Amino acid sequence: MNVIKEKFENLKSKSGSHSPSINSILKEIPEIQIEVDACFLSNPYATQLFLDYFKNDLIKTGKIDRVLEFYPSQNNVIAKSISKSIGIDAKNIFVCNGAIEGIQAVIHNLLHGKLSIPIPTFSSYYEYCHKNIEAIYYNLKKEEDYALNLKNYSAFIKENKINNAVIINPNNPNGSYISSEDLKEFLEEHRDLDAIILDESFIHFAYENSSMRLKSMQNSISDYKNLFIVKSMSKDFGIAGLRCGYLLMNEEYVSQFLRNGYLWNVNGIAEYFFTLYGNEKFLKEYEDCRKKYIMETLFFVNQLTELKNINVLPSKANFVLVELIDGRTSDEVSAKLLVDHGIYVRNCSDKIGLDGQYLRIAARSFDENQKIFRALAQL
Amino acid sequence: MNVIKEKFENLKSKSGSHSPSINSILKEIPEIQIEVDACFLSNPYATQLFLDYFKNDLIKTGKIDRVLEFYPSQNNVIAKSISKSIGIDAKNIFVCNGAIEGIQAVIHNLLHGKLSIPIPTFSSYYEYCHKNIEAIYYNLKKEEDYALNLKNYSAFIKENKINNAVIINPNNPNGSYISSEDLKEFLEEHRDLDAIILDESFIHFAYENSSMRLKSMQNSISDYKNLFIVKSMSKDFGIAGLRCGYLLMNEEYVSQFLRNGYLWNVNGIAEYFFTLYGNEKFLKEYEDCRKKYIMETLFFVNQLTELKNINVLPSKANFVLVELIDGRTSDEVSAKLLVDHGIYVRNCSDKIGLDGQYLRIAARSFDENQKIFRALAQL
Repeated sequence: MNVIKEKFENLKSKSGSHSPSINSILKEIPEIQIEVDACFLSNPYATQLFLDYFKNDLIKTGKIDRVLEFYPSQNNVIAKSISKSIGIDAKNIFVCNGAIEGIQAVIHNLLHGKLSIPIPTFSSYYEYCHKNIEAIYYNLKKEEDYALNLKNYSAFIKENKINNAVIINPNNPNGSYISSEDLKEFLEEHRDLDAIILDESFIHFAYENSSMRLKSMQNSISDYKNLFIVKSMSKDFGIAGLRCGYLLMNEEYVSQFLRNGYLWNVNGIAEYFFTLYGNEKFLKEYEDCRKKYIMETLFFVNQLTELKNINVLPSKANFVLVELIDGRTSDEVSAKLLVDHGIYVRNCSDKIGLDGQYLRIAARSFDENQKIFRALAQL
Repeated sequence: MNVIKEKFENLKSKSGSHSPSINSILKEIPEIQIEVDACFLSNPYATQLFLDYFKNDLIKTGKIDRVLEFYPSQNNVIAKSISKSIGIDAKNIFVCNGAIEGIQAVIHNLLHGKLSIPIPTFSSYYEYCHKNIEAIYYNLKKEEDYALNLKNYSAFIKENKINNAVIINPNNPNGSYISSEDLKEFLEEHRDLDAIILDESFIHFAYENSSMRLKSMQNSISDYKNLFIVKSMSKDFGIAGLRCGYLLMNEEYVSQFLRNGYLWNVNGIAEYFFTLYGNEKFLKEYEDCRKKYIMETLFFVNQLTELKNINVLPSKANFVLVELIDGRTSDEVSAKLLVDHGIYVRNCSDKIGLDGQYLRIAARSFDENQKIFRALAQL
């Protein structure tokens, strides 16, 4: 066990502030048996739906050969498929090789001055800051369960003469959610900011009432020239291996990016996914997967709150941040879960801005959730 | 026919200075029947080899599911597979989502001042120049078949106080080749340049003697801190849809890139390709495909030189630049080939630096080459 732990720590140290992927772990430490990857924030039912289409449309027909052999379409052609799905003009859509490419493009090329970042959060937002852009941390408070209080954040932005602001909704790693109404108010109040980066990568798992209708601020793109909406497809559609994402932004920025780069940044299978994303039948079936997964996640989170050795923070994402309150460390518990139970969770010991011992646990399929629950109950 | 031509012209105008991909054409103009895509610079035998492995390793075993669902490995993990294949330290390898991502990364982030670019060439080299970097054209001469004379290029670089230089070997669109000996001399003479970008995307099709041994300047990376070698995988391995490429460069630049970005820029299937690229058995079989394709290309080019209405420029790549010398325009002939014969060639009317009417014709499989030859003979 100690050898495996050591190898794992070694691999983790090489992955920077991100967890090593399950594929990296299996490659580098083949003796590890991972039964449940609860580090990975992804809807497994959506994965299955995509795989069914992929096999029927590309494998059975032999069309896969052309998809792998030939160049995919250029960025602006793929934007049209996305436009069909979300009803936003293709001119406002910057198609990305994973949302992270878009985050990098905006931070490296468009921003200047100060970028306020509520922490704890997804580390790339501050790690990608360099040269002309300075990351300014806004500390979320433990006593508020690390939820973002927009009024206080607004005051912080004004006091510190911030030029650009990040909001992740729901936030990662804690899953706290801000309503569209509050966000509108914030956008209206901060028209003078150069950029507001609103990351909606987990928005498909959030809801405001029992209809569970999909929420997004995407229609505000035409009203706010400084608004950038980041959308990953990896989580909601369960297809991280494809590298699909997009950013919505003012059309001037899109054409600025495409004038000097990002020509064939989407691969053939990702292009195929985006045609499904514009396909009504697929989207209807996806909607069922989305709601089923939300309801099972809700059930799982309710189960976790019964456990006495952990404190489960309120979340409207597909994961929960869990504080260990029995004196054990997250290093210890995450290694135990991995080696004894084959359950891989996100050890948050490296997350800047967290005060305490935390694990981030993703909801998976119903049966996998039960395995996680039983392992945590045994601790 | 005129409607199709109009639609095609319209699609082409939207693709900037690149030809629309065959997938884009089939999507936007479904009435076109493309029988041979001789615009596409790719070894079809290598495609078939990759597809055989892909189907055996990923489809039949069901492993494809994990490859599409989970995050691929990070950049530095994939660099190790490449290192295994080419024997260059992984620290010098920057893995890219297609070589073009690496070209963009270097031009946008590392270069300052003047970048000399021999033209005609692959247009992204000048299109990606912006802000701190100015493209300076070095005109290749028609009377020298657009081959790059390194002595004259050296003089030009000195006279014009150039900071960075591009060399594509073999060059695109004409296929002219510079020997490793001459390149070494050039590198030695220009140690004072900030950067020498040597694009070897077509090097697998070149050879210096009848052994047809693979040539590359990759081992010079350790001797020249200012050398950047660009390597696309799309052409030699016939897998443009995967988006695979890499750059070799001084390790300081690699770590600079990875410190602030390019985290998960390679998709799951591209990662799988790179494991094959480090696999001895695959590489041996590939070597046979490479030599077979070179020999068939040679046969095809010899056939083309028999035709009297065209002038075939000398090439050591997998394509030839062909000048129309019977008064017809490249617009006219390329449209005729497409609509009457289903043969798609690269109309070079938009290539800056060409003086005359030119088509670029890629070698494909033996049978496809014969179709192209017969169509051209009929003109």
